[in-house]
Amino acid sequence: MGGSGRRSITDIGWEEFHALPLEEKRPYLEREGGRGEPFHTLFAQQFDRPLLERLAALANRIRFISKRKEGALALKSLLCHKRAMLYFSQPSSRTFLSHLAACQILGLTTGSVRDTSISSEFKGESKEDSIRTFSSYFDLIIMRTPEQGLAEKMSWELSNSERPVPILNAGSGKDQHPTQALLDIYTLLRSFEEKGGLHDRTVVFCGDLLRGRTVHSLSYLLTNFPRIRQVFVAPPQLQADESTFSVLRAKGVEFETSENLREAVKSADAVYMTRIQDEWDDAKGDSAKIDTSRFKFGAGELALLPEHGVIMHPLPRRDEIATCCDHDPRAMYWRQMRNGMWIRAALIAVTFGFEDQITEMPL
Amino acid sequence: MGGSGRRSITDIGWEEFHALPLEEKRPYLEREGGRGEPFHTLFAQQFDRPLLERLAALANRIRFISKRKEGALALKSLLCHKRAMLYFSQPSSRTFLSHLAACQILGLTTGSVRDTSISSEFKGESKEDSIRTFSSYFDLIIMRTPEQGLAEKMSWELSNSERPVPILNAGSGKDQHPTQALLDIYTLLRSFEEKGGLHDRTVVFCGDLLRGRTVHSLSYLLTNFPRIRQVFVAPPQLQADESTFSVLRAKGVEFETSENLREAVKSADAVYMTRIQDEWDDAKGDSAKIDTSRFKFGAGELALLPEHGVIMHPLPRRDEIATCCDHDPRAMYWRQMRNGMWIRAALIAVTFGFEDQITEMPL
Amino acid sequence: MGGSGRRSITDIGWEEFHALPLEEKRPYLEREGGRGEPFHTLFAQQFDRPLLERLAALANRIRFISKRKEGALALKSLLCHKRAMLYFSQPSSRTFLSHLAACQILGLTTGSVRDTSISSEFKGESKEDSIRTFSSYFDLIIMRTPEQGLAEKMSWELSNSERPVPILNAGSGKDQHPTQALLDIYTLLRSFEEKGGLHDRTVVFCGDLLRGRTVHSLSYLLTNFPRIRQVFVAPPQLQADESTFSVLRAKGVEFETSENLREAVKSADAVYMTRIQDEWDDAKGDSAKIDTSRFKFGAGELALLPEHGVIMHPLPRRDEIATCCDHDPRAMYWRQMRNGMWIRAALIAVTFGFEDQITEMPL
Repeated sequence: MGGSGRRSITDIGWEEFHALPLEEKRPYLEREGGRGEPFHTLFAQQFDRPLLERLAALANRIRFISKRKEGALALKSLLCHKRAMLYFSQPSSRTFLSHLAACQILGLTTGSVRDTSISSEFKGESKEDSIRTFSSYFDLIIMRTPEQGLAEKMSWELSNSERPVPILNAGSGKDQHPTQALLDIYTLLRSFEEKGGLHDRTVVFCGDLLRGRTVHSLSYLLTNFPRIRQVFVAPPQLQADESTFSVLRAKGVEFETSENLREAVKSADAVYMTRIQDEWDDAKGDSAKIDTSRFKFGAGELALLPEHGVIMHPLPRRDEIATCCDHDPRAMYWRQMRNGMWIRAALIAVTFGFEDQITEMPL
Repeated sequence: MGGSGRRSITDIGWEEFHALPLEEKRPYLEREGGRGEPFHTLFAQQFDRPLLERLAALANRIRFISKRKEGALALKSLLCHKRAMLYFSQPSSRTFLSHLAACQILGLTTGSVRDTSISSEFKGESKEDSIRTFSSYFDLIIMRTPEQGLAEKMSWELSNSERPVPILNAGSGKDQHPTQALLDIYTLLRSFEEKGGLHDRTVVFCGDLLRGRTVHSLSYLLTNFPRIRQVFVAPPQLQADESTFSVLRAKGVEFETSENLREAVKSADAVYMTRIQDEWDDAKGDSAKIDTSRFKFGAGELALLPEHGVIMHPLPRRDEIATCCDHDPRAMYWRQMRNGMWIRAALIAVTFGFEDQITEMPL
Repeated sequence: MGGSGRRSITDIGWEEFHALPLEEKRPYLEREGGRGEPFHTLFAQQFDRPLLERLAALANRIRFISKRKEGALALKSLLCHKRAMLYFSQPSSRTFLSHLAACQILGLTTGSVRDTSISSEFKGESKEDSIRTFSSYFDLIIMRTPEQGLAEKMSWELSNSERPVPILNAGSGKDQHPTQALLDIYTLLRSFEEKGGLHDRTVVFCGDLLRGRTVHSLSYLLTNFPRIRQVFVAPPQLQADESTFSVLRAKGVEFETSENLREAVKSADAVYMTRIQDEWDDAKGDSAKIDTSRFKFGAGELALLPEHGVIMHPLPRRDEIATCCDHDPRAMYWRQMRNGMWIRAALIAVTFGFEDQITEMPL
């Protein structure tokens, strides 16, 4: 590491690096010799519009190429000399499986630790040592933990070790879940690809906007696109807060809050529904006391949604979206989930510097 | 989907489909453009004698081809562009591992969920949504659940979604376990291949014939073969019931019940031993009150078994078969287990329409 | 099996085999048609100096070859027609993952059982039947259990069955952990490769020398190399015992015990630190009563260690080695861990008779 003129993560101490504002951390996390793509992927702030559009184009390409068996085999030969570790100490089947599938598409073999009770942690090992262990046997570490900041710490640690291995943050506490934000943007880009593009749109967020990290990250990423109006529909106790709004204000983005989903749906290009994140309740059952009945998407809302509008949800859902909406062509959440697999494959490919090889493959 | 003249699962509502008798469901579950082989595999009633013999021949072929490294590699290249999900919410190492090995023989990469406590279900997601999630990332879903009917429901759901993905039922409640029945038939076909074939035989079932779904399914499948006499040996409380016998009567199959294993063994071509399924006891320990001592196969029974006879067991066993029988050439249960791997590989191959490619491979 | 003149495990009964001294068991466990390499790997006593040096040379080769993508692919094609089962009924992420990675380097596909509560054992199956089940679907069984002797029993059982499949002992009770000893020796061989070789050295063991099976095995293997002096530094309650010392005496190896780590470090070529194995405490918390404060390696010890000395640890560590030592070039424990992956790959390769094919590959 340590490029010419580029700021390298090996030239900075942990405390100093950690104290930087998110935007300023980006260059330290880039792949050396690349064109701005990440080596470590930690937060949504590493992605600007050109990079998002590159990743979306690459994901599209991977999706098309893998339709034919020869294409699928060509993709699988790209990274078949690499091994990925999926370290998921927080439960998540969806994020786990889509990263697994993304690895398999590119040919990486995988190992996983999904339950820390069967790992060495019971013997008193520190998490840092555990993750450094994984870096000994694997070439990529995909990690999901309830601990804020652990992925960032390990990125610095590994880059400053004998064996720098990229970290892909698959969700860290209340903190960040950057690949979820990527798949959301990819879904919006695909949805409006043939309808004029992702600009001059109204995106409605609804549900638990305070604790759902996906909303926070997506709201941020949308500021990269011109004139995206954002509407936040939630009960007062679960409304997004200044951590979200201050970014929008600073970027001069138009936004408003509301408690009326039906009214918001009428002018929505996209409605992004979310689940009540009651696993973060201070006291168990706190969320249950909030009246969320008006913050659900059902037949009534479907009837009001413009014809070109799309319905999204990061899933899993409870009853935020009625199953009667599932077969509507505007219901984008199943495709959105599958998009996660494609965009993660694209991200892993750029992490290892294989973007050009894929771009040169025949469709 | 929706072939010419063929009844398609996309042309029928769930309630109507679900209400059909098992035999009438078969055509709805077939692979489009195929010759009667399943797309979704849900129950033993989808298999008739010609299909069973095709699968056995294919399993034989896979078994022979994989003996040489070049053959093994050719098989592995067949489905290496596909990914299988093993969703096992009910514990089973044997069924899990043999499906896993079957996938690996054909080159499929795999993902698994074996413990629903680490999946998203805790977040309040419905099982239907969970399984639809898997269908987003995988091309085949192998599922084992304690819930009767879930595999059937998901087959209909997925076939009527944007992304129809085949379901392979690896055991659903007390209900069905079709691939176990397939491996049992395959074992009988192999056992009598060079002894005149599977007809005019006496098959003795012994043990828990009431709750072991394998007995029920195998008994049904045997009605496809000419003049197979069936003898059911069990304590009265665990004897097979009308759900088994009525089928035999309707098909005009000769059968009898007994409490005397030794007597039955003397004229048996095959003895199929089973374990007491005490996990289905209404009250814990109920089974323990039943005297099962006379329903075990030991040295005494071995001495009475005809020389050409075979001993089978779906495994795991407790003490139904004494370990002293293990080295007898008539003990077929270890080979029977391995047969499960071959017949499952054959089934997966036909599900994806690769039967001919395997048949054309050199031995 | 059953070679000309060679003693075969199929020619000896279990009781007689089991009663043999460890050294005399070795020939029964060798690969038929090989040059002394193991078929089943059960204990450190199967490895003498020539075999250790062959394995180290092979591990070096695998390590170099896999640096280039073409080399990595060539290695992956060697055993891609084989499947390995990792049966870990005792928790261990490190040993599990390094065996997994070793398999993946050579192209073996894998299945695993890591939690016996999800396996069939709850149905009352014997461990012997469970392991024989794995042998039905897989070509190699890598097993770690808390039960002493189970790996040896299964080696005999499988070799005397229709389907002999090699067993690789990845840790059996307090008993043996042969591949850990192999990676330790490999690390020492690498460390002194360019410093005159592994002879005329002082190796200091420190920590829980009574219950750490790695110390016992490594101490034994070191007797294969000329004039290696061994120093055992531990609190009296955790000092190595006659089971270790009697071997050294019989082989005429110089050794001593001590309670002074700093003094021992001054003349050490290698310091092998270990963790207090309190999981083996007779009563929970017994170990906590022992004063272990003087048996830790920190900045003070580092300052006393000769410049050419190396620090080793089987990991996981608690606080036996201060993290401030991690970046010192003499800290060998991270590399030691990675060495485990290479030497295990070498061992698996020889088990299947692929040593020559690797030796002939271009670097």
